[in-house]
Amino acid sequence: MSGEAFVTLATTDSYCMGAIVVARSLQRHGTTRSTVVMVTPNLSQQSRLALEDVFDEVITVDVMDSDDHFRLSLLGRPDLGITFTKIHCWTLTQYSKCVFLDADTLVLCNVDELFERDELSAAPDPGWPDCFNSGVFVFRPSLRTHSGLLEHALQHGSFDGGDQGLLNSFFSSWPAEDISKHLPFVYNLSGSSFYSYLPAFRQFGHNAKVVHFIGAVKPWSSIRDESSSHSMEQFVSLWWKEYLGYTTSSGAGKQQECSLTDNTPVEEEGPGCGAEEAEEAEGGACTSNVDTDPVQERGGEGNAPLRDTLTGPSSLPVHSPPPAESLRPPTEPETVSWDTNTPYLVSQLALVVKCSLTDNTPVEEEGPGCGAE
Amino acid sequence: MSGEAFVTLATTDSYCMGAIVVARSLQRHGTTRSTVVMVTPNLSQQSRLALEDVFDEVITVDVMDSDDHFRLSLLGRPDLGITFTKIHCWTLTQYSKCVFLDADTLVLCNVDELFERDELSAAPDPGWPDCFNSGVFVFRPSLRTHSGLLEHALQHGSFDGGDQGLLNSFFSSWPAEDISKHLPFVYNLSGSSFYSYLPAFRQFGHNAKVVHFIGAVKPWSSIRDESSSHSMEQFVSLWWKEYLGYTTSSGAGKQQECSLTDNTPVEEEGPGCGAEEAEEAEGGACTSNVDTDPVQERGGEGNAPLRDTLTGPSSLPVHSPPPAESLRPPTEPETVSWDTNTPYLVSQLALVVKCSLTDNTPVEEEGPGCGAE
Repeated sequence: MSGEAFVTLATTDSYCMGAIVVARSLQRHGTTRSTVVMVTPNLSQQSRLALEDVFDEVITVDVMDSDDHFRLSLLGRPDLGITFTKIHCWTLTQYSKCVFLDADTLVLCNVDELFERDELSAAPDPGWPDCFNSGVFVFRPSLRTHSGLLEHALQHGSFDGGDQGLLNSFFSSWPAEDISKHLPFVYNLSGSSFYSYLPAFRQFGHNAKVVHFIGAVKPWSSIRDESSSHSMEQFVSLWWKEYLGYTTSSGAGKQQECSLTDNTPVEEEGPGCGAEEAEEAEGGACTSNVDTDPVQERGGEGNAPLRDTLTGPSSLPVHSPPPAESLRPPTEPETVSWDTNTPYLVSQLALVVKCSLTDNTPVEEEGPGCGAE
Repeated sequence: MSGEAFVTLATTDSYCMGAIVVARSLQRHGTTRSTVVMVTPNLSQQSRLALEDVFDEVITVDVMDSDDHFRLSLLGRPDLGITFTKIHCWTLTQYSKCVFLDADTLVLCNVDELFERDELSAAPDPGWPDCFNSGVFVFRPSLRTHSGLLEHALQHGSFDGGDQGLLNSFFSSWPAEDISKHLPFVYNLSGSSFYSYLPAFRQFGHNAKVVHFIGAVKPWSSIRDESSSHSMEQFVSLWWKEYLGYTTSSGAGKQQECSLTDNTPVEEEGPGCGAEEAEEAEGGACTSNVDTDPVQERGGEGNAPLRDTLTGPSSLPVHSPPPAESLRPPTEPETVSWDTNTPYLVSQLALVVKCSLTDNTPVEEEGPGCGAE
């Protein structure tokens, strides 16, 4: 449908890998909307070409950094100031309505119904659920809104140093005004839900529509482990399948891999190799293909039937360690040093500001379900 | 106001301590509603007398346990099955509307405005924010609803083995139907918010109205530490002040302490000793008296002014360890073995099912703000 677009942002060559997965997963699930990626000028030419191969539009935007080292230190993520760049998405006035997806998300089914929502629709953040998570949101491009956001940023900064704090301050009516602007959590499902409330993840996680790899460790900086039975590791495995290429009817963006300028442990298989054909769920339901049931089901309890898993319906050990333990820490060594014609600073990149329990914290003693009270 | 009541539940002598704090904190902040505590038959006579001294009504209810060891094991809290007892609150038909408060909550200001909400109003659970947390909720007593809940429990069980899973299944329209039924998170503020999204806690935590001590470690099983500068420890300190007695105009329940039949480390000061007069905030705002700003404020950024703290406006170290590390694990040794005339089982007690990051997990390497992404 013309006039509406999914939008993402890539500010490093590594995040370019994530952006490609966003576009491919949207297209593979048959989106009728345009796909747009905003990029910063530092991307390599090869990365940019790879994006141009997958996206309908590649738009260069200025780097914008909150430079708020103080608040970013509270988050433990000094690299997130650059997420201010995201607000340039309001300048895409060639579109009447857009859905922003962080480059560290993975779309599991057709989510075009998001365009039925209006600005600003987003899912609650698990860390402080009266805030929305800014990794997935519906918005209406508008230069006036863009100016308002810039003005708000200059006057008030951001309470978390990143875009999420700014957007929550600006769209401050979100928590209490209009329930239709509360996207279901399954449109922005973060790994923390697995650890913090495992029974709910098990009950509702099979409805996941968009998975969000929050935290410092990203799929592209992690090891592919297709044999894993852990749900979040299965999502990481799905990400890799999408990146390396499903066999799909979508012809777009299949032949050119993104340039990898950093030492991410990507196995350079060709597109389509090792990937299985994803099956669409019947009746419009979303097929996450990930087992959300970590233990053997008891019979006769009226729960929703479980989906098949990529690795078969093997049960997960209740006390399996969190995935972060088997993921390598991010090794992105990029020090962007090019000149930029904006008054903002740029350091490293990461895209979102929100709760994460998947950072490599030593939670061994906790086990899944630690959040129970 | 007649016809409306705050309701809590005490199923052990230890939780009786919590219930007393609930009643006292409500009364000290001038509630005009009745206070009701439901108790199970196992409470000691001394505990019951202590409750009768503080509450307007003490009502004995049957113990009801989900006996769902399977799902409770997912939560890591096998003791939570007894929380099914909570649903007896719908039998309190002498009241037209009630607000349920778990016995591990602490009321920080007058919250009578909750009665303007309708059934079922509750705050989102940080673990899976499309679920409500069942520690604080507005409901309308009704024998029909009570029967419906019992029937639902028998037919479907609870997806988390406790009352929260049952209530979320029964009131399944909560996530998407009516924003007025989404209580602001500050009416059920859990400690996990401190760890999972520190900047939001710092921005909004000073508006806390009800603090919820989720997790296995309860204030009554923890050490009083009035010198602590950690926000959640300050809330624990506030809990102890409330338990041991503020100097207050409320005459109810000041002279008789609850019987302590377990080895909780309560310092047996007399009522009022060591407690400071709490100051009500002007303009109807809630005074949590707890500093939510862990670091020195930067000037000129338009944030809300900070409240005075109980221990003075000292700044908190950004990398202070979580409070759980200085709290003793629960030592409640109760093995309830009396006969009950219900078909349900009873084991140990705990009141709520929800996300908690405050359990004594070794999160040292994480530091506040670990949740940042």
